[in-house]
Amino acid sequence: MTKEKQEHLILQIKYVFLALIVGICVGIVDTIFGRGLLAISAFRTAHYQYLLPFLPLAGLLIIWLYQHFSSLSLKGMTLIFETGQKKREEIPLALVPLVMIGTWITHLFGGSAGREGVAVQIGATISHEAGRRLHIKEKTPVMLITGMAAGFGGLFQTPLAAVFFAMEVIVAGYMEYDALLPALIAAYTASTTSHMLGLEKFAVNITENWNISGSRDVLILIILGVVFGLTGRFFSALLQKAKKLFGEKISNPFIRIATLAVPLAILLFAIHSGRYTGLGTNLISASFAGETIYGYDWILKLLFTIFTLAIGFQGGEVTPLFSIGASLGIILGSLLGIPPVICAALGYAAVFGSATNTLFAPILIGLEVFGSQNIIPLVLVCIIAYLVNGNRSIYGAQQKALCRFEE
Amino acid sequence: MTKEKQEHLILQIKYVFLALIVGICVGIVDTIFGRGLLAISAFRTAHYQYLLPFLPLAGLLIIWLYQHFSSLSLKGMTLIFETGQKKREEIPLALVPLVMIGTWITHLFGGSAGREGVAVQIGATISHEAGRRLHIKEKTPVMLITGMAAGFGGLFQTPLAAVFFAMEVIVAGYMEYDALLPALIAAYTASTTSHMLGLEKFAVNITENWNISGSRDVLILIILGVVFGLTGRFFSALLQKAKKLFGEKISNPFIRIATLAVPLAILLFAIHSGRYTGLGTNLISASFAGETIYGYDWILKLLFTIFTLAIGFQGGEVTPLFSIGASLGIILGSLLGIPPVICAALGYAAVFGSATNTLFAPILIGLEVFGSQNIIPLVLVCIIAYLVNGNRSIYGAQQKALCRFEE
Repeated sequence: MTKEKQEHLILQIKYVFLALIVGICVGIVDTIFGRGLLAISAFRTAHYQYLLPFLPLAGLLIIWLYQHFSSLSLKGMTLIFETGQKKREEIPLALVPLVMIGTWITHLFGGSAGREGVAVQIGATISHEAGRRLHIKEKTPVMLITGMAAGFGGLFQTPLAAVFFAMEVIVAGYMEYDALLPALIAAYTASTTSHMLGLEKFAVNITENWNISGSRDVLILIILGVVFGLTGRFFSALLQKAKKLFGEKISNPFIRIATLAVPLAILLFAIHSGRYTGLGTNLISASFAGETIYGYDWILKLLFTIFTLAIGFQGGEVTPLFSIGASLGIILGSLLGIPPVICAALGYAAVFGSATNTLFAPILIGLEVFGSQNIIPLVLVCIIAYLVNGNRSIYGAQQKALCRFEE
Repeated sequence: MTKEKQEHLILQIKYVFLALIVGICVGIVDTIFGRGLLAISAFRTAHYQYLLPFLPLAGLLIIWLYQHFSSLSLKGMTLIFETGQKKREEIPLALVPLVMIGTWITHLFGGSAGREGVAVQIGATISHEAGRRLHIKEKTPVMLITGMAAGFGGLFQTPLAAVFFAMEVIVAGYMEYDALLPALIAAYTASTTSHMLGLEKFAVNITENWNISGSRDVLILIILGVVFGLTGRFFSALLQKAKKLFGEKISNPFIRIATLAVPLAILLFAIHSGRYTGLGTNLISASFAGETIYGYDWILKLLFTIFTLAIGFQGGEVTPLFSIGASLGIILGSLLGIPPVICAALGYAAVFGSATNTLFAPILIGLEVFGSQNIIPLVLVCIIAYLVNGNRSIYGAQQKALCRFEE
C-alpha cells in the first residue's frame, strides 16, 4: 500500500469515528434546540396577544446579543458556505448558542421563521471546529458536510434527505461524494439520538395514489412543477431583495429591526390573529388534516417570513417553505382535481428544493416524510421545479459548479 | 435581456425540440435493435446446440465487419465517453449498424453479453452527430447525453434511470445538470415510442415489504450493500484485466476471437447446456418466478460475460449485471433470512450501480422496475455498494471528477 493510500485509509477511519461522535453530539444539541422551540411555539400560540407587542424589543435583544458576543456570527449560513468553499478557516463557536437563542426569541415573540438553517449551522460549526481542533487534514470540507447532515438529520429525522442536502447545497450542481459515508453515519446517528431523546418526527403516511396516465396527468404534473418551482424562485429572489433593500435604507441594525418590527407585529396580529407567526407547522397540520386552508395562506406566509428574516430576526427558511408548499399544494390540488394531500406533499418537497436549489434533498424529504406511494410524481415535480428555479437560492453564498471535463 | 441570455434561451428551445426528435428516432432504432435481439435470443435458446459451434466463426465475422467498415468503432463506449469529455469531435455513424449487427451476431451464436451499452452508443451517436451537423454550438455535451438517455430509456423503458445514468456516468462524481431537461424529454419520448412499437418493458411489482427495524436488519443491509458492491467491483476489475491480458497475449484480433471462442463455446455448451449464453434474462426470470437458482449462477454468468466481451464480441454489460445481481440476491436472501425476491431486486440494481460507478441510476432502475415498496433499503444498499466499489467502472474511459470549490 502506498503512503498516500495509507493516509487516505486512516483519514476515512477517523471520519467514520468522528461522524459517530458528531452525530451523537449534534443529535443532543438538536434535541435541546428542537424541543425548546416546540415548547416556545406552543406557549406563543396560546399567548400570542401578550407576546407579539414585544416583537420589536425582542429584535433589539437579538441584535444586541450578536453585536456583543460575536457580530461575525450574524452572517449565519454564509459562514458555513464560505467555510465549505475554503474561503474561511474557522467558524466562531459562539454562533451555536447565539443562533439557538436568537431563534428561540424570534419564535417566542411571534416572528415567522424556520429552524433547519439553525440546525445546519449548529451541526456544521460543531463538526468543523472539532475537525479543526483535532488537526484533521482534509482537502474537501468533509467534516463540515458531516456536521450539516447531522444537524438537518437530527432535527427533522430525515437522514437521507439530510445527507443529500449537505452534499449538494454548498456548490449547486456538484456533489461532494467524499462526504457520503461520514454524512450518512452522522445523519443516522443524530436522527436516532434525537428520536431517543424524545424529539418527534413529522411524518404523514399518504396512502392515496396518483397514477400518472394520459396527457392530462402529464400536463397537471408540469403545472405543479412549474408553479412550485416559481414559488421557490420568488421566495429566494424576494428574500435577497428585501435584505438588500432594508439594509440600504436603514443601515443601523438596531433601528432597522425596532422600527420595522412594529408594522410586522401589527400585521401578524391583525391578519388572522397570529396564523402566520412561527414555523408554519399550523399550516402544515391543517393541510394534511383536511382543515381550512385559505387561498392566500401560502403567499402571506411567504411574505411574513421574508419580512421577519430580512429585518434581522433569526431562524431558518425551510419549515416556512414546507408550509408554503403544502398550503399552495392544497389549493392547486382542489383546482386541478388531484387529491389535495398528494399535491400538498409534492409542494412541501418541491418548493423547498427550488428555493434551496437542490434536487435530491427534496425528493428524499418527500420520501422520508410522506412514504413512497407517489414517488414517480414526486421525482418529476422536483425535477421540473429545479429546472424553473433559475439557479436561484435562498443561500446567497451558494456557488454554482463551473467545473467541466477535466483530466 | 442580454445577448448572452438570449442565445442561451434559443439554445434551450433548440434542445427541447431536438430532444423530441432524438427521442422518437432513437426509440425506433431501439425497438428494431431490441425486438430483433429478443427474436434472436428466443431462436438461440431453442437451437443453441446447432448455433454454439459457430461461435468462433461468428467472432471472425464481427471482427471483419468492424475492420472493413470502421475499425475506430471497435472502441465503442470509449468513443462516447471521449466525445463527452471533449477529447473527440465526431463519432462515426457506421458505429450504429456495426454495434447492432455485432451484438445480434454475438447473441445468435450464444455469446454472453448485454444490450444497454449498445442502446447507449446508438442514442449517443445519433444525437451527437445530429447536433454536430445542425451546427449546434454547445460547451457541454448536452446532445450526447440526451442521446444516451434516449438510448437507455428507449430500450429498458426506465426513463428516469436513463436520465440519471446519462448525466452521471461520463464523469464520476459530477452531474451534467444542463442536460436535465433535454435528457428527460428524450428519455420519455424514446420510452413511449418503443413501448408503442411493441417493445416490452421488464418490470416486476414486488409487493413484499422489508421494514428495516433493529440492528440485525441494519447489519444485513450493510452485508448486502458490501457484497453487491464488491461483486460489481470484481466485475469491473476482471473485465479490464481480461481485456488487457487477451489483447497482450494475442495481438491479432482475428486469431484472438477465433481461438478463444472455441473453449468459450465448449464451456457454454458443457455447463448447464447454454444456461449462461445470451443476456441472462433467463436467470432474471428464474429469480423472480421462484425457479431454481444455483449458488454458482452469478459467478458463472460473471465469468462467461467477461470472457465473451474480453475476446472481442459485441454487446453491453448491464443486462448480465442485472442477472448477476438478481441471482446473487436470491442466494443471499435465502442465507440471511430476507425475502429472496427483495434481495434479488436490490442486487439487480446495486451490482449495476457498483460496476458502472453510478449512484442515482441504480436507485431509479430499482424504482422503475420493481416499484417503490422497498425504496429505503434500495437507497441504502445502492449507497453502500457505491461506497465499496473503489471508484472502479466497467467503462475504462470514465473520468473521475476532480473539480473542487471554484469561484
